[in-house]
Amino acid sequence: MEHLNIPQFVGLLVVILGTAKALGALAQRIGQPAVLGELVAGVLLGHSVLGLVDPQMDVLHLLAELGVIILLFEIGLETNLRQLLQVGGAATVVALVGVALPFALGYAVCVMLGFETLVAVVAGATLTATSVGITARILADLNRLQEPESHIILGAAVIDDVIGLIILSVVTGLTAGQTLTVLGVATTTVIAFGFLGGTLLVGGLLVPPLARAVSRIDLPGTPTMLAVMLAFGLAWLASVVGSAMIIGAFAAGLLLRNTPHAHEIERGVVHLGHFFVPIFFVTVGAAVDISVLNPLEPSNRSTLLIGALLILAAVSGKFLAGYAPVWFKGNKNVIGVGMIPRGEVGLIFAQTGLASGVFTLPLFSAVTMMVLVTTLMAPPLLKYLLPSGPQKPPAPPPEGIEELVTES
Amino acid sequence: MEHLNIPQFVGLLVVILGTAKALGALAQRIGQPAVLGELVAGVLLGHSVLGLVDPQMDVLHLLAELGVIILLFEIGLETNLRQLLQVGGAATVVALVGVALPFALGYAVCVMLGFETLVAVVAGATLTATSVGITARILADLNRLQEPESHIILGAAVIDDVIGLIILSVVTGLTAGQTLTVLGVATTTVIAFGFLGGTLLVGGLLVPPLARAVSRIDLPGTPTMLAVMLAFGLAWLASVVGSAMIIGAFAAGLLLRNTPHAHEIERGVVHLGHFFVPIFFVTVGAAVDISVLNPLEPSNRSTLLIGALLILAAVSGKFLAGYAPVWFKGNKNVIGVGMIPRGEVGLIFAQTGLASGVFTLPLFSAVTMMVLVTTLMAPPLLKYLLPSGPQKPPAPPPEGIEELVTES
Repeated sequence: MEHLNIPQFVGLLVVILGTAKALGALAQRIGQPAVLGELVAGVLLGHSVLGLVDPQMDVLHLLAELGVIILLFEIGLETNLRQLLQVGGAATVVALVGVALPFALGYAVCVMLGFETLVAVVAGATLTATSVGITARILADLNRLQEPESHIILGAAVIDDVIGLIILSVVTGLTAGQTLTVLGVATTTVIAFGFLGGTLLVGGLLVPPLARAVSRIDLPGTPTMLAVMLAFGLAWLASVVGSAMIIGAFAAGLLLRNTPHAHEIERGVVHLGHFFVPIFFVTVGAAVDISVLNPLEPSNRSTLLIGALLILAAVSGKFLAGYAPVWFKGNKNVIGVGMIPRGEVGLIFAQTGLASGVFTLPLFSAVTMMVLVTTLMAPPLLKYLLPSGPQKPPAPPPEGIEELVTES
Repeated sequence: MEHLNIPQFVGLLVVILGTAKALGALAQRIGQPAVLGELVAGVLLGHSVLGLVDPQMDVLHLLAELGVIILLFEIGLETNLRQLLQVGGAATVVALVGVALPFALGYAVCVMLGFETLVAVVAGATLTATSVGITARILADLNRLQEPESHIILGAAVIDDVIGLIILSVVTGLTAGQTLTVLGVATTTVIAFGFLGGTLLVGGLLVPPLARAVSRIDLPGTPTMLAVMLAFGLAWLASVVGSAMIIGAFAAGLLLRNTPHAHEIERGVVHLGHFFVPIFFVTVGAAVDISVLNPLEPSNRSTLLIGALLILAAVSGKFLAGYAPVWFKGNKNVIGVGMIPRGEVGLIFAQTGLASGVFTLPLFSAVTMMVLVTTLMAPPLLKYLLPSGPQKPPAPPPEGIEELVTES
């Protein structure tokens, strides 16, 4: 097996981080969330433009996964579990309608266009995804994680991720020619929700005494590193029981939020996040093929038509889901728009469809186009609907700045 | 090609970081530097005991390399270039004597034991290495990086790394049956030292105006991430021109030390260091095979004898090099002991010897034993010779702690 060229990969990391930070800063300069710039950086570096970043590469894939784990851990650290549970009903309704409606609309579009039932089912399934990472990042950048709308979006997106896993296992089974069993679906469902509930219950009992014990260890950075280990450990455990790693990481954040070290952990983890999280968004962008968007290429025209119809189904389905919790008094537009981005979750569905031979290349390209458009439209729309929240208190002035000035 | 099992690797990271932090804390509790515990964690997790960590694995190797790059960058950030140049003469003498003496002693031991000339030359070469990472980490942990002794050790270790690259290319040539050319050695030497000098010269002109420009970018974490990119970029560049990545990273730290952002960068990078650096030390420990140390195995006895003689040569050669700058008034014992650990550099030499067929397995094992003993003896000896320096000012109290208390 050929070994990785490490210096060359270190150079590639500079290109990835540099492009992501530059376009992120540019996005902010024109009033957009930084994550939009990072996604565009990925599209530019990916195989459809410059071909520098291959998201299938093991090492890059790992760094990206660590990025989304750290991101969801950070989001968990900033999320109040009690407030999340208070909007649990609304979140569940948004998640369920946000899965059912896009699925039905996508299925209808495909049947109308003359596709077979199996193809229409798999295409409909790709429309059910929500990328919790993208929305959560925008809400965090806007300092809006404490609003009830944000709690509903986060709760619905997490439930959606669990449902997504179930759908993915069903779709993988269907494309492999298996028949559906109610027992199989029920088992996956119980495990996925059981993991989250069980972790929060057991962790809620164990974490506070452990946090007190940690205070006695005198090694710099210990609370942050222990917290990262908890996030990684629960991510691994989630995957072992058949759930998604990011759900374990999110649970770790929720559990640590009320410990005395929460602020110290947050300040430490944010630096890991600055390094790892942009790598995740760049690989999401890099996985998208934008060449299908060129209307001058005649073979793209049917793809563009299918894609346009799928986008209509995808956007209206999720947007209407935001209105499903009729009793909620807040801004329902924000909820609907927050659920729109498909991101990496949609791409995973699309890849499954292509790899199994259920999707033809034009249909796969149309689905990719839907993922690209829904992913890139959400950040500016959310920013428009939701102006920046109250600024966080500024960081304390760096210690010893006088020392430096007198020294140099 | 089989893809990496990402959840499993995330679990392995928890084991690596957990063991490193636990044994690091234990080492501190018994009055030893934390790095000793991290190296022992590596030995335990490596193939000679538990077999969980394979330092040859691409992903792990990359994370370890990022760790040593970040470590040397941190050390550069804390190193005053002017003070380093002031002890440049002493550092150069220590480096040169610290290469020549262990080489001569190792060569003599091998010839005395009846080995061929080529074998004796390669074995002697493995004794010339110094692991700047290990010593620098101990000095940093003891808050002693500002002492003149530390500057001499760091300067000598960096020069030693450059010389090591030259020796490695010579040894690789010799073991491949090439003849030595003065021109080849001279070219490698000029490139290696030219890179460091050129970088510091060009960087010294470019970095201050760039640092002022950065102050105007309003994206959280920007100075730290730009600094990390500079460190990675110079590491890559160093490797491209045929030098060592860590020399580029060290140069980046030296360049940024006098910018107004230096303290902010340091506070950010330290968190990346807490994550990446232990991975480096664990892989160094994991590369060592301790089964050769078992005296009950008869076949080990000649290995143990050769190993013991090589250790004697390795330790006395570097220790005496500390006395080479006779005009220096400080603690020469500290300098000599600081140069003793061979660490990963020694292992790379040993691997080259084994892979080329110049070393027999017993001789390779003896060299490994020399690396293990010199690496593990340096931390406690340095700690004994050099009590902890003045404590850094304590971190400011975490912001918003009252808010948390009233909330929960």
